[in-house]
Amino acid sequence: MENKKISSAVVKRLPRYYRYLSELLENGIDRISSQELSKKMKVTASQIRQDFNNFGGFGQQGYGYNVSFLHDEIGKILGLEHNYNVIIIGAGNLGQALANYSGFVKRGFRISGIFDINPMVVGKEINGIKVLPVENLEAFTREQPVHIAALTLPKDQASKIAGRLAELEVKAFWNFASTDLNLPEHVVVENVHLAESLMRLSYKLSEKNG
Amino acid sequence: MENKKISSAVVKRLPRYYRYLSELLENGIDRISSQELSKKMKVTASQIRQDFNNFGGFGQQGYGYNVSFLHDEIGKILGLEHNYNVIIIGAGNLGQALANYSGFVKRGFRISGIFDINPMVVGKEINGIKVLPVENLEAFTREQPVHIAALTLPKDQASKIAGRLAELEVKAFWNFASTDLNLPEHVVVENVHLAESLMRLSYKLSEKNG
Repeated sequence: MENKKISSAVVKRLPRYYRYLSELLENGIDRISSQELSKKMKVTASQIRQDFNNFGGFGQQGYGYNVSFLHDEIGKILGLEHNYNVIIIGAGNLGQALANYSGFVKRGFRISGIFDINPMVVGKEINGIKVLPVENLEAFTREQPVHIAALTLPKDQASKIAGRLAELEVKAFWNFASTDLNLPEHVVVENVHLAESLMRLSYKLSEKNG
Repeated sequence: MENKKISSAVVKRLPRYYRYLSELLENGIDRISSQELSKKMKVTASQIRQDFNNFGGFGQQGYGYNVSFLHDEIGKILGLEHNYNVIIIGAGNLGQALANYSGFVKRGFRISGIFDINPMVVGKEINGIKVLPVENLEAFTREQPVHIAALTLPKDQASKIAGRLAELEVKAFWNFASTDLNLPEHVVVENVHLAESLMRLSYKLSEKNG
């Protein structure tokens, strides 16, 4: 597979490239030079050229890069050509924010279910999806594949639910709970630790002023 | 200043250490060996010892590390001994989630104001704080210092508001809008690009299964 050859340093930069290329497409721009993209992204043009060479994105002299080709190639490497079913565990403000964000659907992530333990929340509709009780998880996953679970629930409940979902064959977790999950090796996790992010900001601020 | 000597690689790991040390303190644990912490954090004990040596965290043979000392030292490096006033721009679900998260206050981040342009939302109370119209920003910042602005609004509005806030002497931005801000050099930014995070998860998932 081509993907295997791309270094992890390049892979790290791909989501950002993808975001910029998506925006260009939305604005009807179908070609761009490495210089123009460099200016927009504040990355050197030579880094852009090197990165794009990795997956056959060869710019043509006097023409530039084909935006839609690059967009699709990077999308494939990122696995975005799949359609993923995403469930959200925890229908609080954060869970609702994810459920309402249109950018995910656009990239092939479909919210297929929202779950909560709170009986006051169960039955409510969020973006057209009825919140189900967590007891339904087993039945739900039997009926349709769940590819990704977003965990937007308190940290003391996150590990237990994640373990239960891993047993139900959910293989990817988007973890917003302020804890590290302890899951089998075949499962992948992407953490969004907001408190840590805020501490990084605090560090930058005190370094600058101090 | 002591901080200056700490490498950026170590600094990157500090928020996570801080999180674990906070949890130990909450559980009434006042000392821990590098081995025990290593097991919890899945980091080697020797890395922990090296990292902690950087700021005078010397474990004692047979006693281990003083949790509260380490916690406070790391907190100081991260600038957490300050009390920060944080305003939230955009009172949608994400803004509400931040406003309601108790973990921030605990670390010295006080939500001092919430702003929105939507007249349907202005005047509502979120966690005891009344949502103000964005027109009030100038008057608001004149009356009390604002250290950090969290931007939880659509990307097409984020850059403009950020520029306006930078002129009002806000020096740190926690940016949740799916765009890169173009701000003066003295301003610091921490981005939380959720769509990019989800793409990283998608990459990990397709790499594992492909």
